[in-house]
Amino acid sequence: MAVVMKKRNYPLSQIRRHLETGPVVLVSSAWRGKTNIMSMGWHLMMQFEPALFGCYIWDGNHSFEMIRKSRECVINIPTVDLVDKVVGIGNCSGEKLDKFEKFGLTPVAAQKVGAPLIKECYANFECKLADARMIARYGLFVWEVVRAHVATSPKNPRTLHYRGQGQFMVAGRSMSLRQKFKRQNL
Amino acid sequence: MAVVMKKRNYPLSQIRRHLETGPVVLVSSAWRGKTNIMSMGWHLMMQFEPALFGCYIWDGNHSFEMIRKSRECVINIPTVDLVDKVVGIGNCSGEKLDKFEKFGLTPVAAQKVGAPLIKECYANFECKLADARMIARYGLFVWEVVRAHVATSPKNPRTLHYRGQGQFMVAGRSMSLRQKFKRQNL
Repeated sequence: MAVVMKKRNYPLSQIRRHLETGPVVLVSSAWRGKTNIMSMGWHLMMQFEPALFGCYIWDGNHSFEMIRKSRECVINIPTVDLVDKVVGIGNCSGEKLDKFEKFGLTPVAAQKVGAPLIKECYANFECKLADARMIARYGLFVWEVVRAHVATSPKNPRTLHYRGQGQFMVAGRSMSLRQKFKRQNL
Repeated sequence: MAVVMKKRNYPLSQIRRHLETGPVVLVSSAWRGKTNIMSMGWHLMMQFEPALFGCYIWDGNHSFEMIRKSRECVINIPTVDLVDKVVGIGNCSGEKLDKFEKFGLTPVAAQKVGAPLIKECYANFECKLADARMIARYGLFVWEVVRAHVATSPKNPRTLHYRGQGQFMVAGRSMSLRQKFKRQNL
């Protein structure tokens, strides 16, 4: 069933190409010998270099304390073939089960953080906490992305974009307007 | 040329349905008798009620000081038919020209803020600054959305999602997995 994707180390200054479109992501974490996964759609790019990425995490999520205490996570981008797993992950708690096992996902050791990459995802971004000061008030984690792994193909993956109410938009066609951009804006 | 859209006041607790997918937005502002528009793709939902929305604005943008000083803006969501205007707006400065005039867009008075709505956009969210403390360090503006206007049709607009390098993804097909969600997660 599972498609094996070839991934490459990806330039950190270019990760916006996969995050700025606003995909649903899976956040993997590890703490005291346990791992977990949550689905998440409230995030933004914050800086190119060093690569900063911000996300909101609800403190009711089982992942919240694992992520806050370990100060690390991996942001994984799933594609439409994983939609059932994405929904399943978002609709159960990791408190009493192993989500990697339950959803048949493969944890792969990261290079710079303790949290595992999710092998089946199109892209994996290893993150270290850069700023914890907005967590208490806003649930906002500011991450430095320290390593990026992105599948070499396809170039434009069919990512999932959440519309609320159980509905997703699937990434559609690409269009280039490159010739209408000023060079310094590319 | 322009399609006239019928819009309705939209429940603020539901605006995530149009923002969480990660569309490119146009930010309109007003300050001391002048208006401006910028394109922007680095944003996130932060809270349902009151509706909080965060965005990064580069301090090199002409809009930056207009928005910071007025403490208001409108977040407008364009659709694919406006892509040439979106790119044009992102590739010129409002310092010396009127972008509404140059790009043939229609300013409409907002109800709760001084910044104008962009009539041709699918949705318009009137915003008041809720937290200025992360502007200096991160360029992060935290907005309370105080009024929302959304076109009554289509339900799933063809929004633009920026991939960098002059390339856009256009919102594709919708799929509902509503039946796989727990009720409290909808």
